[in-house]
Amino acid sequence: MLSKSSPDSFELPIRVYIEDTDAGGIVFHAKYLHYMERARTEWVRSHGVGLRAGLNDNISYVVQKMNLHYRAPARLDDQLLVKVEVTGFSRVWMGFNEKVLKADTRELLCEADVRVACVALDSGKPRRLPEDMMEILKNTV
Amino acid sequence: MLSKSSPDSFELPIRVYIEDTDAGGIVFHAKYLHYMERARTEWVRSHGVGLRAGLNDNISYVVQKMNLHYRAPARLDDQLLVKVEVTGFSRVWMGFNEKVLKADTRELLCEADVRVACVALDSGKPRRLPEDMMEILKNTV
Amino acid sequence: MLSKSSPDSFELPIRVYIEDTDAGGIVFHAKYLHYMERARTEWVRSHGVGLRAGLNDNISYVVQKMNLHYRAPARLDDQLLVKVEVTGFSRVWMGFNEKVLKADTRELLCEADVRVACVALDSGKPRRLPEDMMEILKNTV
Amino acid sequence: MLSKSSPDSFELPIRVYIEDTDAGGIVFHAKYLHYMERARTEWVRSHGVGLRAGLNDNISYVVQKMNLHYRAPARLDDQLLVKVEVTGFSRVWMGFNEKVLKADTRELLCEADVRVACVALDSGKPRRLPEDMMEILKNTV
Repeated sequence: MLSKSSPDSFELPIRVYIEDTDAGGIVFHAKYLHYMERARTEWVRSHGVGLRAGLNDNISYVVQKMNLHYRAPARLDDQLLVKVEVTGFSRVWMGFNEKVLKADTRELLCEADVRVACVALDSGKPRRLPEDMMEILKNTV
Repeated sequence: MLSKSSPDSFELPIRVYIEDTDAGGIVFHAKYLHYMERARTEWVRSHGVGLRAGLNDNISYVVQKMNLHYRAPARLDDQLLVKVEVTGFSRVWMGFNEKVLKADTRELLCEADVRVACVALDSGKPRRLPEDMMEILKNTV
Repeated sequence: MLSKSSPDSFELPIRVYIEDTDAGGIVFHAKYLHYMERARTEWVRSHGVGLRAGLNDNISYVVQKMNLHYRAPARLDDQLLVKVEVTGFSRVWMGFNEKVLKADTRELLCEADVRVACVALDSGKPRRLPEDMMEILKNTV
Repeated sequence: MLSKSSPDSFELPIRVYIEDTDAGGIVFHAKYLHYMERARTEWVRSHGVGLRAGLNDNISYVVQKMNLHYRAPARLDDQLLVKVEVTGFSRVWMGFNEKVLKADTRELLCEADVRVACVALDSGKPRRLPEDMMEILKNTV
């Protein structure tokens, strides 16, 4: 279900369901943020790290910035690919470029730069990325 | 924004937005569960009880059963009313009948019987309804 | 990604993402309707029929009734299976029993009986199920 | 329910429900796009224009760009305000700045610049903004 297309990129296949569409006949624009979040999650999981284990250790992740370009709409039944690339990181944040493509033509539908920060689950305050995440980032970029 | 139409019923106005619709041009069937949950929440709030305070006291609520009849579809821009009536309760659960109506015609669009149980947030185990909720229920039915 | 476990049942694997969860730490109850809709969609697709082609032919499907039992909560990162069985059909509706299971233990988390009707996309009026769908149903039950 | 705070701004009150939150205990980041879309919709409606009438005339609107900054999280039960300001427009697009504030403190939680294009519903191709929308824009900026 997952493939690693190069040392520094990752692709998640996603199918468009009726729940994702709106009365305009296309995927609702907020849904791309779900798709991109799923892709980041599976990228992390492909390196052996789960989000729930993080929550149990009082570690959570929050999106700080997101710059989105919508190029063309996805529609019901479309098979998509969400591509994740790490663009940078510090001790407390990670930067990603994510692209949603049509799987068959590889047409670019939506692209975003995303900055995700690590926070303490209970207080919401910034904290250092855990060691296992830092290892992944160092090996990826 | 809220009105209490009788001692034992409550109505919440809800507007249909594009996010609620799907490519079939109507409100996605799962969205009615959101509408009904909002109405139960506002019914509780109208009696002075908030859900977040509950979470802080390790009290959460989970839906156990839901029996839904969809009569007619809601569409973009429709103004709806969600009517809540308490149908019964015990020390650990509450039963509701909820109706989603078109505001102008009062046409019935969707109806459900819902059973909600009280659980401990951390363990998920059943627990007694808190005192303030029991008071509301006793005064309502 | 899909498996047909017997002539009359079908299972779709689904992963729980953060988007599916709520502040109670569990999957939001309305999300199971999404999971079940995805499973019905993939069951149809596994028989060669797509929903978008239907919309293009003015054919849509609407849920008429849904009777849900929530047994145990799903949580972030859980791998689920959604099992679909056809329980009956007429010229204008289809009945399903759907079960959401934990993939590893096959614990039953949520179960529903669902009735789905065929309607004309433009008018919303009931219409006969298309031939390809009738063929699938006849071969399945 | 709606207030116009100045000739060129508009505020919509929005309550945070459990459906909006995630297992991190805060509002899921994609939900702010829903809130902002609701506010744009109510801003248009406050000028007498409904989206459904547009769909009936083959007019739809799609988000082209969105640049989001998340400053602080919203939580269950929070009362929010979403502020809409028109920042520019052409014959085929509209630009908005939107701010999500906590209602009581007016703390800024999330801000976005959004560009929305007008398209034909059937083809998805760009088209000129309808006259009623152009009138609103000319009177607003």
